[in-house]
Amino acid sequence: MAAKSLQLAVALLFLLGGVLSFPLGQDTKDTKDTVTCGYESCHATKPNMLNVHLVPHTHDDVGWLKTVDQYFYGDRNDIQHAGVQYILDSVVDQLLKNPDRRFIYVETAFFYRWWKQQSSSMQQTVKQLVNEGRLEFVNGGWCMSDEATTHYSAVIDQMTMGLRFLNETFGACGRPRVAWHIDPFGHAREHASMFAQMGYDGFFFGRLDYQDRNRRMLAKEQELLWRASDSLTPPVADLFTGILPNGYNPPEGFCWDQSCDDPPIRDDPDLEDYNVDDVVRRFLTIANSQSMVYKTNHIIMTMGSDFQYENANLWYKNLDKLIRYVNALQSNGSKVNVLYSTPSCYLQELHRANLTWALKTDDFFPYADSAHDFWTGYFTSRPALKRYERISNSNLQTCNQLEVLGGPVSRKGPFGEGDSQTMKKAMAVAQHHDAVSGTEKQHVANDYARKLANGWQHCQVLVSNSLAALTDSSAKRIYCDNLNISVCPLTESSKKFSVNVYNPLARPVTWPVRLPVNGTAYTVSDANGKPVDCQVVSVSKATQEVRRNRGFAVNELVFQVQAPPLGYTTYSVSLLQHGPPPASTQRGTPTVIQNKFLKVTFDADTGLLSSLSNLETQQSIKLTQNFYWYNASDGNNSLSIQPSGAYIFRPNSSTPFVIGKTAKTESIQTSAVQEVRQWFSPWVSQVVRLYADSRALELEWTVGPVPIHDSLGKEVITRLDTSINTDEYFYTDSNGREMLQRKKDFRPTWQLKQSEPIAGNYYPINSRAFIKDDVDQLTVVTDRSQGGGSIHNGSLEIMLHRRLLYDDVRGVAEPLNETSHIFPEGLVVRGRLLLSLDRPPSAADAHRPLAEEVVLQPLLTFTDGDLHPNTRLEFSGLQAALPPAVHLLTLSQWDEDSVLLRLEHQFQSWESKVNSQPVTVNLQKLFSTLDVLGVSELNLSANQWKGEMKRFDWTPQKGDKPLLKTFEDPSTWEVALRPMEIRTFLLRVSLR
Amino acid sequence: MAAKSLQLAVALLFLLGGVLSFPLGQDTKDTKDTVTCGYESCHATKPNMLNVHLVPHTHDDVGWLKTVDQYFYGDRNDIQHAGVQYILDSVVDQLLKNPDRRFIYVETAFFYRWWKQQSSSMQQTVKQLVNEGRLEFVNGGWCMSDEATTHYSAVIDQMTMGLRFLNETFGACGRPRVAWHIDPFGHAREHASMFAQMGYDGFFFGRLDYQDRNRRMLAKEQELLWRASDSLTPPVADLFTGILPNGYNPPEGFCWDQSCDDPPIRDDPDLEDYNVDDVVRRFLTIANSQSMVYKTNHIIMTMGSDFQYENANLWYKNLDKLIRYVNALQSNGSKVNVLYSTPSCYLQELHRANLTWALKTDDFFPYADSAHDFWTGYFTSRPALKRYERISNSNLQTCNQLEVLGGPVSRKGPFGEGDSQTMKKAMAVAQHHDAVSGTEKQHVANDYARKLANGWQHCQVLVSNSLAALTDSSAKRIYCDNLNISVCPLTESSKKFSVNVYNPLARPVTWPVRLPVNGTAYTVSDANGKPVDCQVVSVSKATQEVRRNRGFAVNELVFQVQAPPLGYTTYSVSLLQHGPPPASTQRGTPTVIQNKFLKVTFDADTGLLSSLSNLETQQSIKLTQNFYWYNASDGNNSLSIQPSGAYIFRPNSSTPFVIGKTAKTESIQTSAVQEVRQWFSPWVSQVVRLYADSRALELEWTVGPVPIHDSLGKEVITRLDTSINTDEYFYTDSNGREMLQRKKDFRPTWQLKQSEPIAGNYYPINSRAFIKDDVDQLTVVTDRSQGGGSIHNGSLEIMLHRRLLYDDVRGVAEPLNETSHIFPEGLVVRGRLLLSLDRPPSAADAHRPLAEEVVLQPLLTFTDGDLHPNTRLEFSGLQAALPPAVHLLTLSQWDEDSVLLRLEHQFQSWESKVNSQPVTVNLQKLFSTLDVLGVSELNLSANQWKGEMKRFDWTPQKGDKPLLKTFEDPSTWEVALRPMEIRTFLLRVSLR
Repeated sequence: MAAKSLQLAVALLFLLGGVLSFPLGQDTKDTKDTVTCGYESCHATKPNMLNVHLVPHTHDDVGWLKTVDQYFYGDRNDIQHAGVQYILDSVVDQLLKNPDRRFIYVETAFFYRWWKQQSSSMQQTVKQLVNEGRLEFVNGGWCMSDEATTHYSAVIDQMTMGLRFLNETFGACGRPRVAWHIDPFGHAREHASMFAQMGYDGFFFGRLDYQDRNRRMLAKEQELLWRASDSLTPPVADLFTGILPNGYNPPEGFCWDQSCDDPPIRDDPDLEDYNVDDVVRRFLTIANSQSMVYKTNHIIMTMGSDFQYENANLWYKNLDKLIRYVNALQSNGSKVNVLYSTPSCYLQELHRANLTWALKTDDFFPYADSAHDFWTGYFTSRPALKRYERISNSNLQTCNQLEVLGGPVSRKGPFGEGDSQTMKKAMAVAQHHDAVSGTEKQHVANDYARKLANGWQHCQVLVSNSLAALTDSSAKRIYCDNLNISVCPLTESSKKFSVNVYNPLARPVTWPVRLPVNGTAYTVSDANGKPVDCQVVSVSKATQEVRRNRGFAVNELVFQVQAPPLGYTTYSVSLLQHGPPPASTQRGTPTVIQNKFLKVTFDADTGLLSSLSNLETQQSIKLTQNFYWYNASDGNNSLSIQPSGAYIFRPNSSTPFVIGKTAKTESIQTSAVQEVRQWFSPWVSQVVRLYADSRALELEWTVGPVPIHDSLGKEVITRLDTSINTDEYFYTDSNGREMLQRKKDFRPTWQLKQSEPIAGNYYPINSRAFIKDDVDQLTVVTDRSQGGGSIHNGSLEIMLHRRLLYDDVRGVAEPLNETSHIFPEGLVVRGRLLLSLDRPPSAADAHRPLAEEVVLQPLLTFTDGDLHPNTRLEFSGLQAALPPAVHLLTLSQWDEDSVLLRLEHQFQSWESKVNSQPVTVNLQKLFSTLDVLGVSELNLSANQWKGEMKRFDWTPQKGDKPLLKTFEDPSTWEVALRPMEIRTFLLRVSLR
Repeated sequence: MAAKSLQLAVALLFLLGGVLSFPLGQDTKDTKDTVTCGYESCHATKPNMLNVHLVPHTHDDVGWLKTVDQYFYGDRNDIQHAGVQYILDSVVDQLLKNPDRRFIYVETAFFYRWWKQQSSSMQQTVKQLVNEGRLEFVNGGWCMSDEATTHYSAVIDQMTMGLRFLNETFGACGRPRVAWHIDPFGHAREHASMFAQMGYDGFFFGRLDYQDRNRRMLAKEQELLWRASDSLTPPVADLFTGILPNGYNPPEGFCWDQSCDDPPIRDDPDLEDYNVDDVVRRFLTIANSQSMVYKTNHIIMTMGSDFQYENANLWYKNLDKLIRYVNALQSNGSKVNVLYSTPSCYLQELHRANLTWALKTDDFFPYADSAHDFWTGYFTSRPALKRYERISNSNLQTCNQLEVLGGPVSRKGPFGEGDSQTMKKAMAVAQHHDAVSGTEKQHVANDYARKLANGWQHCQVLVSNSLAALTDSSAKRIYCDNLNISVCPLTESSKKFSVNVYNPLARPVTWPVRLPVNGTAYTVSDANGKPVDCQVVSVSKATQEVRRNRGFAVNELVFQVQAPPLGYTTYSVSLLQHGPPPASTQRGTPTVIQNKFLKVTFDADTGLLSSLSNLETQQSIKLTQNFYWYNASDGNNSLSIQPSGAYIFRPNSSTPFVIGKTAKTESIQTSAVQEVRQWFSPWVSQVVRLYADSRALELEWTVGPVPIHDSLGKEVITRLDTSINTDEYFYTDSNGREMLQRKKDFRPTWQLKQSEPIAGNYYPINSRAFIKDDVDQLTVVTDRSQGGGSIHNGSLEIMLHRRLLYDDVRGVAEPLNETSHIFPEGLVVRGRLLLSLDRPPSAADAHRPLAEEVVLQPLLTFTDGDLHPNTRLEFSGLQAALPPAVHLLTLSQWDEDSVLLRLEHQFQSWESKVNSQPVTVNLQKLFSTLDVLGVSELNLSANQWKGEMKRFDWTPQKGDKPLLKTFEDPSTWEVALRPMEIRTFLLRVSLR
């Protein structure tokens, strides 16, 4: 099928010796006579009638109330009746019964599981259905990702995995034309941008702010053109976007699933209650009324919902009748035509209408479905899972890279069989909109974490094998995943060990290392044997409390490491038997901590931060920071009974309670690091930390167990109050890529009636947020997705943790009240905010690399004792570091001979004089140990040759219709990257 | 198919001029090469293993919580998720996927609805499945009838209708081999007798007394031979009977329907929670434990339940896996073999085992599933529906007879198109075990009644057409269905009208007529113009109250009519303008009322009956009678929380409350009738009535609205206390046929531990009960099914009405608290008990014809004004009345040229010196207006030639194995009937 020929094409290309264009398409062309899928397979419509596109579909959460595998098998139906294996069984059966019928399937995580259990004859049957457009894949990623709490890197990965499976299984007919995010709770602009670059012709979703919807219904702007990037040249990131009429449900009274109670069509006049006339009348009323709020003579109806079609006969039998009886009225003059359809067939008709469409450039956050129901809680829900997901992505990228750099031995080597696939799948399901979003049941959250941990086990074997090959040493490699709480049995007890620091970035990295130790003095030397400045500081009381007997180190060894691009270096650590005592902590608050870049002052009376200065730019702001909690609404409220919950944030007062007006403090000042440790309460503490070589101030917060003995749910924030004159503006990133401007009590596309002064001003922060005025910009880089807002001038608040006592009635049916066996009294969460103070025109030059280092952080592995003398202590997979603007987004083994490479320009067009420039990279000279034999460019999701990617063109109402971007033939090895551009390549490589 | 050849055979026979044997079988023989159904199609079993027969099945109530058509379509799934159309769709699909799979279907009422909606190709597919034994019909009647509250006449009819459809549609392969009453709440011996005579090889059910089950499990007597008649020669009424292991449910943990939550088999080792080993282990444990309480190395498991298999894939997918994984262990020495099977395949293995089986001669009433949970309430529940069902049967038999006697014009004649089919179907569904049983929801009860009323509308047209043909008059014919409450607009206002009295019995009948009138004097003359004694009496106050403005007659005209066998006569009624005043009522109680047969005395102080004497036999008993109510348990009880409800009777005290210790009385004594009208309370009254020519004393009771303002549920009984020395014995009929002996606190087959002194001594009374000693027998003939018992010596109590405030937690989820728009404050019910006092050896000579007259009562139709002079005033369809022992059970049009005839010997072998003798009837000389051209004898259900009916022979543990009865060739037109024998004939007839 297509994938084969895609491979053939690449192989052919390689044989031709590196020619960068290729003639071959997908093999469905070879069998064109028997294949009619995609737009060609759509049913005819009637130009002079209102055409109602019935779209049978199921929405199969990749985990929510049940785990993904419970959903697949239909286990634990006592929790929720849902069994995806049966859905696919049943739909295929029913499609075969009537060639007019259509079905769309969305979540490849499930389809894949089902497919591999099918007989080859069933597989052949399904291929035929796909080839005839009767079964159509839409979206097609491994899951339907969350948009508020995901990072673009992981989203692209999961989409790539799902679409690759479809491509390899079904070829071109399996390629989704439409993106389909019917359930996520608000929509990120970056998602739209990615979908555009993945080649989707259009995008449909179900949820948006109720005020926004109302205005759009009146203005007939529920279908629009979304220009999803301020940097990419239109129409590269233009995405036609349609808002579905009923979320993703059928119109009222027309749900014929086994889970519904709507009356079936009873068309036997011999039996009681013949209701055909009534059904047809009700349907026509709904159709005509729906047509009033859309532009064309086509409307769509989503005939399905959560886990529906387990018994597809119920749906199709009644839909067959509906179509028959409604269309029968045409002979009596009815002007309504109903047909089985798909989102792409509907989209095709919209495109054929050749209208102009409202242009949108902002996003769809926050989402409120009623005046007091803002879905802004999940931006922060389950902060520990959100961090684990983010660090897992970093580990996976390292795993992927080392699979490429280490060669085949990495998958089967001295440490056994390893793989990256397990972790890829675990990460892919974790992107689901009830996974990293934190809106699943507790047992399901545990399952996602377990899957990630299991994936990482598989990766560890691979990483060990790979590093063994690269270092020429099979010495046992120890992983310490709990360094954030100063736990690492090896370093706690060993007198001599080495640390391998792998840097997954394409640039050298400088990184502070803190290792739990029990000695008081150590020597550290780098790969060249050169001693490195190191300091021993005491483990803070907060850390001792939260690690709960998982480790017993009394001190931490702190030193700065530097690792080469896409490579590692090695540090040796030895206990000094008679070294100096560790740095002593000082009670009370120092006036100032300072390194060569930053100066931080504190208020000696309160123990709080008081100012921040950038010594290089010579700018300074007042900065106080403290911790507060909002009292979560318990639903007992005159305005609304909505409580705060996993989805919804609803403080019952706009004024948060301060947790401690003052902080007890102590400090440590060493040459490597200066720390001010603050205690705000028994359950909130923080370390303000300044490493010697860092341009960012680290705030390491520890929150929990959030007390609930007062029966009050609490939403814990930290708030930075500054002298910056923000004028009610602040800025947040979209999925870790482009920045969006936010304004208090304001939405760019409609006249907002604000009804929740706090929750209605919260936005997702995936990697950073900033506030600024003309001279100062304070950027906060986060280590996970969080919610935040700027409620007061100069202020930025970030929600860190939530503990709630009521379910918010959106289905999860559990209060978000996290405990674990280690923390039965409530989860303790620790994280870091990195603060960067800069001049606005150059702030991105600082925060882009800073955030990049947080997203892809070095992986430390440890070896006890002395290393073998032949061990290769340093390695870089690159011939040279990439330019600062270029991020190596993906380096991953594709198949035996080829690797997937994504290069990204990580600056927006406007944000840096230095870095917002086009830049080129030479692919042939990229790697130090890999020969690149050939290259083919792909779309972002790697399921289509870039040169064959043709998308519908759409005309915006305002502004010129953009010229269609012509495909740039990569005629040389030099590939250019413009601001925010991601280019995806399939490289044929061989290890040197 | 079979039916065709059955028809062909009859036709051939007719051509041969009435030869009474016939050579042809069923046409499946012609295509034997491609047909392997029935026992031949069973899967092989393994002789040295425990064979577990998995029987996939669905139990589809023909109405219960929803109406039958709601169940069919899956409407009102908010009440209960159930849609039979989808079940059959799905099962057929799934059977096609794997030829090993099996399914049984039971309720032809549903299958018929489904079948007629299928395409011919689907019909062909289903025929193939039936021909291969993959889809097997069991039971196969229109419904699964109730056994406690049905009359054999209607049960035979509904079975005949269902089995006829299967025969005509599928031929021999559609003929059920097994009767299957998995849900009815106790089992009647007469049902077993009927099933035996219908040719079933065996019978399975699910419910029996928990004590009985426990004993049978220990004794391995859950499979037994039921000798179901004391009159028919074994093995005519012998029925092999199996008690299913889990009611009709799957073993615990193995329910894989969409309605269940048991874990599916998760056999993909790549997914979480692989559970094959656990499932197999649990299954083997259950199978081995089940095998300990059955005799053979075969056990059966019912894999299904109520309305299951709507998505059959769930079941079959997991059953396929179960079979695969359990049997896979055989290679490791496991001795358990699992297979898809059917009840008949299981039965065949039991038969092959060639063992002896416990013999049972009593019945399975009452049914208790726990110490305080006796299902004896439904014997009486919904007494109005029970009566309406019974009178509807009478009307339907009249309709059937007149369709035959009137010829084709009856179906299409001067009054339009009429049919008996609608009413046949209505009556058939009314036999369901949640229909006439009274255990359905109120709206469903209403639907059954509506269906019966609608059926009667169709029949009225037919009857009018037929009578028009027979009378030679198209005068408009008026039906008065509410004569029991003295409502008939015509007679109330007309000055001259005629009454046609049709008698559906094969003997002349004498019948008292009471017509509501507003005149004070009338003349009545018979068909010969001869005046008839008539009297006008005032309408009782009780009647005036209950008719609620539906009629306004102040008087009733009373006279005795006599009608010829299977025919009618006509009476003319004229108002006398200056006639005498009506008979006056006398306040107070007379000492005695008396006619030439009976003498009845009253206690002047109490107004109650005090004695009854038979003047012919010169016997006399003390007899008092009064009304009482048991206080229904509300579930708030230390012994058990079981309340009384639609199913369960549970008085919270064994002593009932008397409703009125004394009765207010008045009396009317005329030459035609003598009445003592008794008022016991505002809601209980009675008329004790003695017609001039009657040998039975009529007690017409009126009960309701049962008051509930005291928040007490009430179960109203009447109790007859006599001087008869009953020694704790009494007698009740089984489905209106044979009488069974009952004894207080005793069961014939096990040592009863009585835990409910009243409810545990209640039994169903379908048509009569009696108490007796050596010299006196008091028989009470009822007009509907009721529950009753004999708690004290000489006493017989009958429950008349129930009004309850709590649901009894058996699923119906409604308290049995009947109201209607006419009786919003509670239903009023009226009925009749007929008392006959006789010498025991000859009592049946009285009660058999008496009950026969109640079951098939004359139909009165009215014509206003003068009849046309040419009107034929009298007609009998018979050449002569049949002998007293012979009941004409069925006379019904079969197809254009043939009619179905059933003749019944209505006496048990022991009950009458005179009548318990064989008797012969000449079929050729039977009818006065029909020529009988040919005759073929059939089995009782008319779906098999009698000569081809071969059943498994079984050996009882005790007693001789009966000789197989050889088929008696009806070599002459004379057919013999022995006690309790029913013979079924297909006659080819032509109207003279």
